[in-house]
Amino acid sequence: MILVVCLNPALDITHQVERVDWAGVNRPTSVYARPGGKGVNVARTLHALGADAMLLGLAGGPAGNAVESDLRARGLGTAFTPIAGDTRRTFTVVDAGAAAVALFNEPGPEVSAAEWDEFRAQYGRVLAVAARRGAAAVVLSGSLPPGLPADAYATLIATASAAAVPTLLDTSGAALRHGIAAGPDVVKPNLDELAALTSGPTDDGGHSGTSQCAQMSTVMAGAAVREAGARSVVVSLGADGLIADTPAGRWHAHPPAPVAGNATGAGDAVVAALAHGLVSGRSWPGRLRHAVALGAATVASPVAGEFRPADYAAGLETATVRELPPAARPAPRQPRPAGQEQEAC
Amino acid sequence: MILVVCLNPALDITHQVERVDWAGVNRPTSVYARPGGKGVNVARTLHALGADAMLLGLAGGPAGNAVESDLRARGLGTAFTPIAGDTRRTFTVVDAGAAAVALFNEPGPEVSAAEWDEFRAQYGRVLAVAARRGAAAVVLSGSLPPGLPADAYATLIATASAAAVPTLLDTSGAALRHGIAAGPDVVKPNLDELAALTSGPTDDGGHSGTSQCAQMSTVMAGAAVREAGARSVVVSLGADGLIADTPAGRWHAHPPAPVAGNATGAGDAVVAALAHGLVSGRSWPGRLRHAVALGAATVASPVAGEFRPADYAAGLETATVRELPPAARPAPRQPRPAGQEQEAC
Repeated sequence: MILVVCLNPALDITHQVERVDWAGVNRPTSVYARPGGKGVNVARTLHALGADAMLLGLAGGPAGNAVESDLRARGLGTAFTPIAGDTRRTFTVVDAGAAAVALFNEPGPEVSAAEWDEFRAQYGRVLAVAARRGAAAVVLSGSLPPGLPADAYATLIATASAAAVPTLLDTSGAALRHGIAAGPDVVKPNLDELAALTSGPTDDGGHSGTSQCAQMSTVMAGAAVREAGARSVVVSLGADGLIADTPAGRWHAHPPAPVAGNATGAGDAVVAALAHGLVSGRSWPGRLRHAVALGAATVASPVAGEFRPADYAAGLETATVRELPPAARPAPRQPRPAGQEQEAC
Repeated sequence: MILVVCLNPALDITHQVERVDWAGVNRPTSVYARPGGKGVNVARTLHALGADAMLLGLAGGPAGNAVESDLRARGLGTAFTPIAGDTRRTFTVVDAGAAAVALFNEPGPEVSAAEWDEFRAQYGRVLAVAARRGAAAVVLSGSLPPGLPADAYATLIATASAAAVPTLLDTSGAALRHGIAAGPDVVKPNLDELAALTSGPTDDGGHSGTSQCAQMSTVMAGAAVREAGARSVVVSLGADGLIADTPAGRWHAHPPAPVAGNATGAGDAVVAALAHGLVSGRSWPGRLRHAVALGAATVASPVAGEFRPADYAAGLETATVRELPPAARPAPRQPRPAGQEQEAC
């Protein structure tokens, strides 16, 4: 069983409007509302893959009720811890004619210490069940709502490690930094998150992620993340696929051809495939092949975060996974004198 | 007991954003969500006045749950009929710096014939209780959701009349036209609604509602509405107050001075005051004085649809109610040859 932790879910509301009047009254031609947040996307993808997944998180207020009841109606296993605050909404206005999109992201609810205690107790109970069943993993995905400590994911990783259940972490900023220090089995930063984490090496001035120079800096930054505590690092490069640095080796997995479409949720599909590959006992190259194929199929789908099984199957045939040479240990970082240009790669 | 019918309530969500990016990602500095819809506003004002009110309506989905639970938490009596569709949301983006406001109004939920039957059964039960208690009235306020017949309010008015309970109607378009034919005790159109109803006489080319010419055309249009079935007509003129045409006489009620502020919900406050005055046994001039005072106090409040009791009390002292001379019966309407200008008043 895969436990997916989503501490800051959302109700994603989308209004499609013809010829938006940004200073007047609009009547949307269509309205969609569906559960969102990175962990929710991962759980939904795992469910579509037929994996045994259980979504844990914090939910409150009308948007929290909507998230929970929608996921249950779709047959997903959920065990949300109730909170007094209101689960956030995101609100997207799409004007198809003008190709304009405006997004309004509400802040997450303030979570109390008692609610966080309650969540951890619930997490511990479900983790114990999953560990007994075997073939378990924990996915920790997305931002932390206000009120939670920056080491919230670190705490959950430590609990899972104590139960010998592997963990996959996909977050950013301080939560990512603290999480890495707790020794997760896999972290999946994108290039921006990696750059923020290692402040320097991946800032390649806009070079493509596949240029040799950029690839080398990514590998070096990934190695630094492993030095900091993560057992394996999978860096997502967008259309350029994935670079993985693991105890078993180093690979670059690449989708066969650029895919046009909606990249929203593609990173979450990659995380779902990595978790599914882990509990299924796939080799690292196999996990990475599935991950790029599922990511590309998700981009190709018009609905964010969904995929057609035929696209996934086709991607498995055509994706390439190439082994990379062992990298040198990253050099210890030297403070640069202020104003000095970063030397060219 | 005053029954307030709100067939198309809403969850009104407001995002305040600093320097809105209409083509990017925004993080609202504050988020408000509260129940809305004209009938909800009337019921909330009656509750603030200390009147015995009960809100009936149709509610479904997460927004419907939010509307119901918020009103209950405020101590309002509610008896919503559950529906399968989702209660609509309205979404307002306010950029205080740029004084820009964009509004997105979702369509109301499709209501089935069975749900409408269920509502009418519920309405009949509550109406019977209210009629037995005495001092009862029914307020029918706002738009009809999709699926309901245009004569929905007419049906509810006929049921109330059969129980000898007076009715107040505040809606527009076909629902207003059908409702008037069913003989409500009071209708409260604004000038636009009156113009749409009588197509002609109130179209004064933008003249102020207090000019003698505009007032005469309003009185004539009001008389036509009474001819069509309404026992009394109260026309709201915005800052120029109210003109009432009733079996007891004709009046122009005027707030003492122009009030700056937020006019949202002021019309609903007028309806609440008229209903409260009716069940309290106030004379027509007394009802109108309360209505303009409460409307002006609502405009003066920074929060849409709320008022300060001190503003209300002050308005009662300073509002003027002036009797108008009996109007001539409106002349039967003559079709105008196409292209001919409407003659000056």
